[in-house]
Amino acid sequence: MRLADSFRSERFGAVRIHELQRVIELDSGALADAGRPGVSTGSRIVGPDALRAIETQLVIVVPCMNETRSVIEGVLSGIPHDCLIVLVSNSDRGPVDRYEIEAQTVEQFCRLAGRSAITVHQRDPGVAAAFKAAGMDELIDDAGLVRAGKGEAMLVGMALAAMTGRKYVGYVDADNYVPGAVQEYCKAYAAGLHLAESPYSMVRISWHSKPKLRDGRLFFSRRGRSSEVTNEWLNRFVAEYSNFGTEVIATGNAGEHAMSLELGLKLRLAGGFAVEPYEYVDLFEQFGGILESPHPEVMASSVPVLQIETRNPHFHDNKGEEHVQGMRMQALNVLYHSQITLPAVRQAILDFMVAQGALQVGQEPPRERTYPPVETLALDLLYDALDAEAQSFRQLDGLVAEPPIVRERIPA
Amino acid sequence: MRLADSFRSERFGAVRIHELQRVIELDSGALADAGRPGVSTGSRIVGPDALRAIETQLVIVVPCMNETRSVIEGVLSGIPHDCLIVLVSNSDRGPVDRYEIEAQTVEQFCRLAGRSAITVHQRDPGVAAAFKAAGMDELIDDAGLVRAGKGEAMLVGMALAAMTGRKYVGYVDADNYVPGAVQEYCKAYAAGLHLAESPYSMVRISWHSKPKLRDGRLFFSRRGRSSEVTNEWLNRFVAEYSNFGTEVIATGNAGEHAMSLELGLKLRLAGGFAVEPYEYVDLFEQFGGILESPHPEVMASSVPVLQIETRNPHFHDNKGEEHVQGMRMQALNVLYHSQITLPAVRQAILDFMVAQGALQVGQEPPRERTYPPVETLALDLLYDALDAEAQSFRQLDGLVAEPPIVRERIPA
Repeated sequence: MRLADSFRSERFGAVRIHELQRVIELDSGALADAGRPGVSTGSRIVGPDALRAIETQLVIVVPCMNETRSVIEGVLSGIPHDCLIVLVSNSDRGPVDRYEIEAQTVEQFCRLAGRSAITVHQRDPGVAAAFKAAGMDELIDDAGLVRAGKGEAMLVGMALAAMTGRKYVGYVDADNYVPGAVQEYCKAYAAGLHLAESPYSMVRISWHSKPKLRDGRLFFSRRGRSSEVTNEWLNRFVAEYSNFGTEVIATGNAGEHAMSLELGLKLRLAGGFAVEPYEYVDLFEQFGGILESPHPEVMASSVPVLQIETRNPHFHDNKGEEHVQGMRMQALNVLYHSQITLPAVRQAILDFMVAQGALQVGQEPPRERTYPPVETLALDLLYDALDAEAQSFRQLDGLVAEPPIVRERIPA
Repeated sequence: MRLADSFRSERFGAVRIHELQRVIELDSGALADAGRPGVSTGSRIVGPDALRAIETQLVIVVPCMNETRSVIEGVLSGIPHDCLIVLVSNSDRGPVDRYEIEAQTVEQFCRLAGRSAITVHQRDPGVAAAFKAAGMDELIDDAGLVRAGKGEAMLVGMALAAMTGRKYVGYVDADNYVPGAVQEYCKAYAAGLHLAESPYSMVRISWHSKPKLRDGRLFFSRRGRSSEVTNEWLNRFVAEYSNFGTEVIATGNAGEHAMSLELGLKLRLAGGFAVEPYEYVDLFEQFGGILESPHPEVMASSVPVLQIETRNPHFHDNKGEEHVQGMRMQALNVLYHSQITLPAVRQAILDFMVAQGALQVGQEPPRERTYPPVETLALDLLYDALDAEAQSFRQLDGLVAEPPIVRERIPA
């Protein structure tokens, strides 16, 4: 893969946000220059061996809700072979058991392609029991099940990723019509994580464009309806500290992103659709140098956030206006309530939300739920309980007779 | 890349048509089993080294007509680095010189990505002069220019490919919105050419689906409007000889296809949109064992045609109903007029075309134009004249100072 060089970055304490880098070539040939800058071209190659080295350590978590079989099959076909697949589903279990169809799709794919995967249903009572046993009661709702949001699915996925002993986790939404785009996301994760040169790194995707129906024809929109707002406010948050306006953050809502587990396990994830923008907020809170960091070793290093603009259009199901408005407001809720958001920005958020009709005058934005870091979980207890109680929990070991994926690889 | 195994094929003389094979994984990992069947999985891996070996010998010809800059840029970004790009344009040169924009797009991309390309305009008087000098007057119209059709663009592209000394040529239409699909086509060409194990091989793509607007939402159609008819009649042609009905041909209209130049240079290409189905007809005429073959060495070998179903949707500009009806009828015209089409099929074609309103009762289908094989061209004369007279002819040599791509590599 060849990426445009990133010449500029903004620092926020230990957090180093790189300006958006474009993908120039999906396949940059066999040249193994391993990320050295191209000769005066302003681009960098990450060769196949460097990509492969990351992919063999990368878990791809696919949060899934009621997608059709053929869409899921396409997404799976785009995930590079060396990545481990983890499907976390919140699909209907009745009247038709859609999770069963999804799990079968994964199983058939793994059998054909000789690869491994883990599938689990988010609302399986055994999964809730396992997270309780492992010490995260916060994740459980009044019905005694893991809460239903996307952030919660990502948290479950990260915990499973941690149990495999791999080093990186990346997320790919299941509602993607273009397998080649999924492949590009995974390659971009690998390229970015390779280039980041820090144990605490994150890669976030900004898609090239999003095809939309407009007057009976397709229009390739460059900006998502929700992303514009989220990015603008995250940038205002940063600018209020630096006194310089900035547009560096282009991936506030990035559903497609990856990180080293050394970083990921330290993050406090938010519930629902607040999860993606809250990653930025939490990075600023924990590693921004404003509050005392719980992780001085990270502060002594750095936390690079690479932002990569893909070539493929992001072509997915249209979830409708309500969904978008919800996402937008959840991002603002977490920014509003951050301890380190400066008063001027907090007031401006309030004014904006009132102007948007999302709040009445005098109301406060609701607080989004946030969870303790995944590293606080007792992974051995989590595994034992999943294995014993979670009926939806399946480990598919490809063709080769192997011990269960997870069991033998739990970090000591 | 991992492909489903092809268990069945139909023979027609030396032509061996393999039943459609699905792509299972876009990236099958580093495992270098080089096309050996997977362990009882019914699939085959073509590993990265095997793919690379073909790509370094593969010229990708992009026929182009009035596409926008960003679409072309996307297509280029999807062509694997080791392939050589040849853009053959028939775009408007006024009032805006669209070819100039295209050539600049290619040039900028090559500079960024450090790669080589050739661009040329089909209607450049110097190109016509060069093909005349090389001995193919048939290609020239009354205005003294190379005829404007797609088949003619492909012929020009094949001649340029032959001059580079590379071994394979593949075609990718410029009107593709999904760079990842372009990448998949090229990888499928490489995988198929690797698996074909014959110096005279062809790979034809059947796309997974084609998104269409229907009642304001997207519908992923499995079959093209034109392909259904073309495939049905090609299969009837074959079945009339074998006495067994067949559906083996699924790629009669495949715009995306590749072949060894050892095969391609022997083919008689047709003009316009007849070019793709006529490739089948010409294979049957030259290597089907009905007529005496001009190439006994090919008859002693075999001519495998691999058909590969890609994972990505084929997502391109909608050219409208008239275009489709034209393509459909051009395919029937070439089948009708083939010397080896049996009388029953010929009569049925006539009846079908009358029923479709494409012919009056008593009329004959028009004859499509066909050209002599590219191997009859004097390539040295072609190059000299292009170099001297074709102002649109450009060779971009990437970053490295190199001799012109073509000049030094003309096969003796």
